[in-house]
Formats: sequence, C-alpha cells, structure tokens
Amino acid sequence: MEKRDLLYEGKAKKIYATDQEETVWIQYKDSATAFNGEKKAEINGKSVLNNEISSFIFAKLKEKGIDSHFIEKLSDTEQLVKRVSIIPLEVVVRNVLAGSLSKRLGLPEGIVFEKPIVEFYYKDDALGDPLINEDHIQILKAASLEEIEFLKKTALEINVFLQELFLSCGVKLIDFKLEFGKDQDGEILLADEISPDTCRLWDLETNEKMDKDVFRRDLGNLTDAYQTILNRLRGESAHV
Amino acid sequence: MEKRDLLYEGKAKKIYATDQEETVWIQYKDSATAFNGEKKAEINGKSVLNNEISSFIFAKLKEKGIDSHFIEKLSDTEQLVKRVSIIPLEVVVRNVLAGSLSKRLGLPEGIVFEKPIVEFYYKDDALGDPLINEDHIQILKAASLEEIEFLKKTALEINVFLQELFLSCGVKLIDFKLEFGKDQDGEILLADEISPDTCRLWDLETNEKMDKDVFRRDLGNLTDAYQTILNRLRGESAHV
Ligand SMILES: Nc1ncnc2c1ncn2[C@@H]1O[C@H](COP(=O)(O)OP(=O)(O)O)[C@@H](O)[C@H]1O
Ligand SMILES: Nc1ncnc2c1ncn2[C@@H]1O[C@H](COP(=O)(O)OP(=O)(O)O)[C@@H](O)[C@H]1O
Ligand SMILES: [Mg+2]
Ligand SMILES: [Mg+2]
Repeated sequence: MEKRDLLYEGKAKKIYATDQEETVWIQYKDSATAFNGEKKAEINGKSVLNNEISSFIFAKLKEKGIDSHFIEKLSDTEQLVKRVSIIPLEVVVRNVLAGSLSKRLGLPEGIVFEKPIVEFYYKDDALGDPLINEDHIQILKAASLEEIEFLKKTALEINVFLQELFLSCGVKLIDFKLEFGKDQDGEILLADEISPDTCRLWDLETNEKMDKDVFRRDLGNLTDAYQTILNRLRGESAHV
Repeated sequence: MEKRDLLYEGKAKKIYATDQEETVWIQYKDSATAFNGEKKAEINGKSVLNNEISSFIFAKLKEKGIDSHFIEKLSDTEQLVKRVSIIPLEVVVRNVLAGSLSKRLGLPEGIVFEKPIVEFYYKDDALGDPLINEDHIQILKAASLEEIEFLKKTALEINVFLQELFLSCGVKLIDFKLEFGKDQDGEILLADEISPDTCRLWDLETNEKMDKDVFRRDLGNLTDAYQTILNRLRGESAHV
C-alpha cells in the first residue's frame, strides 16, 4: 500500500489517498483543540496514544461483530481504513450528564440516566456543530429516517460494548461521539476514531477525568491520562 | 368573576388569580421583547390586537373541536382562561424555514418543507430557551413519551387548521410556537396565546412579514401589521 496525496487535514488527523481507491491512510496528529477550535495546543505523544487506543477499540469491536472502517494499524501514528463519505452528523451517546448537555439543560454534571440517550449534532465547524433533531437531519438530507434509526441502534449497541469494555478496567463511560460514513456500496460504516478525545471517561472509584476534559478544563497532564486508559485497556496495570 | 392577586408577570402578559381556583385572568401587555429579552419596547395597541387575534383564533379552534384554555374575552386587553400548570416546553411547528432554524442549519430562509416539522425548546429564559430532543424532555421530566406524542400530534393538527385559516385570508403560516399546560385533572390543554407575536405570517403574494419579525428586524410599524392580520381574519378587508 502506498501513501499518496493529502486529501484533508482535520483538527486531529490527516487523511491521505492511497494507491487503492477504496482505502485511505489516516495520520493522527499531536494537536489538541477544544471549544470549536478556540483552544489549541500541541501535545507530544497524543497522536501515538489515540492511534493505539482507537485501533485497539476498533479491533475489539470487530471481534464482537461490529464492523468499522478500520483495516489495520500501520505505524505508531498511522492507520489504514476504508474510505467512506462521512455523514455530517456527530452521533453522541450519553450515559451520565456532563459537558454541553449539562449547560443546555441547566442540570449538574453526574446525573446518571435511566437509559442511555442519543443525540445528533450537525458536523459543521462554521455553525459550531449545533444540536439538531430528526426532522432537521431530513431537511439537511444528511440521512433518511431509516438511516437515522440504524445510526441510533448501532450507536446504542456500541455503547453497550464500550461500557462493558471500560467498566472491566475500572473506567466509567460517561458519553462519546461517533461518526459514520457510507462506503462505495452505500453501506453505512462506523468511521473516524474512538479515543479519549471522543469519549468522556471517569475513573470508576475516584471519578477522576481521563479524557479530553483534562485539556479542556486544565486538569493536569493529558498524555498521562490517555496512557493510563491505554494501559488499563491492555490490562497491563493493576485495576479493579 | 373577580380579578384577584397578580400571580405572574411575563414578558407579554400578566396572570391574575380570580375568585375561582380553576380560572385565571390574563391581561395582555403592550410590551414587545425579542432575542430573549435583549430588545424591548412599549408598543401602544399591541395588547388590544393580540388579545383580539388570540381570542378569535382560540374560538375558531374550539369550533373545529380543538380545545384550549380559552374561556372568554373580558375586555380589550383581558381574557378569562382555565388555569393550567404550564409544561415548560415551547412546541414549535414549521412549514417554511425561517428565523433561528435558518441560522442553526446554515440554510436560507424561505425553503418550503415537504412536510411540517415539530421542535421542542425548553422554556427557560435563563438558559435562553434551548432546543432539546425527546430524550432531553424525559430527563427534564417535562413530559412523558406518551405526552410528547400527544403534543406533536396536537401541534400538527393545529397547524393544519391554522394554515387553512390564514391561507383563506391571503397569509402564509411560516411557523408558530405553542404552549400547553395540565389542568386540575391532569389533562393536557393548549394554553398561552396564538398571535402574530407567536406565529410567523407572510403575505401570500408579496411575502411581506406581518408578525413580530417586523419588530425584531425593524421592518416598519408593528401594530399596522397586526391590524392587517386581524382585519384579514375578520374578513373585513379585500384579499385573495
Ligand atoms: N474512513 C474515512 N474516510 C474518509 N474520511 C474520514 C474517515 N474517517 C474519518 N474521516 C474524516 O476525516 C477527517 C479528519 O479527522 P479530524 O482531524 O478528526 O477532523 P475534524 O477536524 O473535522 O474533526 C474528518 O472530517 C473525519 O470525518
Ligand atoms: N392558562 C394558563 N394558566 C397558567 N399560566 C398560563 C396560562 N397560559 C399561559 N400561561 C403562562 O403565563 C405566563 C405569562 O405569559 P407571557 O407574558 O407570554 O410570559 P413569558 O415571558 O414567560 O413568555 C407564561 O409563563 C405562560 O406560560
Ligand atoms: Mg474529528
Ligand atoms: Mg410568552
């Protein structure tokens, strides 16, 4: 496989073409951004950790029968994935109230929901990734009603799997964001990344934050937190 | 019926107790506010027009079998209504893209939807009346899933009726906001007001705005526009 032209540079990853039409080469970056790009930093080692964690989770998901764009990890910071046309929706699943939803509803962080909830945000940096409802999704022609149902169902299945995975290594999955895309056959596939950049993860015992909120809220060393997540996932460290 | 203590003063109306527990006395005000109270003005005659239009519409709705809190018009600026405990949701129906949704989706005003859409905003001035989804409504315990379905169904029925009513007098119903409440038996009832303050109304031929956007966007004389709406509803002026 050959790495070819840069197709797109995002906030956290670069996407390169390859010599195969249906495959793209993802390079994780050390950049951290928050609040729609308002807060920025270079964080040495974040790319390696997110690539490793994301590859680990996509591989585990595959074992459980949940397919994604992930093909293989190519290097410390690189992945080979199936090329998809990204559906411009951020599909968010929440188990516990935190972050922007806590502000939106005027309720304190930490409230545990009776059942997980799913939200859709319109993936558009210029608009600030606004919350939208299912009617809006159809107006935007981002997805059909049937596709919306599929996205919700799949997101909730992934939630069940991720909750279990993290719980087994002493971590509470508070919420996370998924992106999906359509492959060349029009099939919807989980894409992008699943990492502490895109999940809220709290220590089961102490509620210590081990995700991008460490950066957003200046709570300490980000790579230490992400390294702990990776170690726990690998089962290399003592935990509950 | 006696007017007793002031129970609540809102941005557009005052609510008074009466000598009957199940009834409140609404006094329409001349205040106009927009952008969550940031823009304010006193507009002589608005109270009279909104009271008249709202009473007219509630009476017409009743004829069509759609019940509301409306009992009777008491004076130029006053109505007697059933007391309800307001459900803290603004139920918005849209037929054509305009206003905040146009900004949210980054699409131009005027797009006609294939079918009407319903949105829920959390009625909370301090939070800026944020858009919420059906899961959020349940987290807030604002309404149950069954009640949400009832609100949507009823709002869409009211839309069919209002669209027809306005169309018959040369006015396009772009969107509108409803509030519902629960009466003493726990029954859900349409409440608040239906007026050019709470509807977007465009002239069928010229697309001229005949609603609160005249105030929001400084497009001319607000009471002239509202008077035209009232005249047309009454069939007192020539129209299509
Ligand atoms: N399999 C894929 N095929 C094509 N594009 C993808 C794939 N997976 C993720 N992307 C897109 O790659 C871009 C780069 O990722 P990222 O740096 O996170 O961007 P952003 O700043 O838009 O969040 C994003 O637009 C993301 O949606
Ligand atoms: N039938 C009713 N019983 C009790 N309260 C009502 C009824 N109809 C409307 N209300 C409430 O009366 C208040 C006054 O109206 P308004 O001036 O429009 O207030 P706001 O500034 O909150 O929009 C609102 O909180 C509205 O929800
Ligand atoms: Mg991204
Ligand atoms: Mg009001």
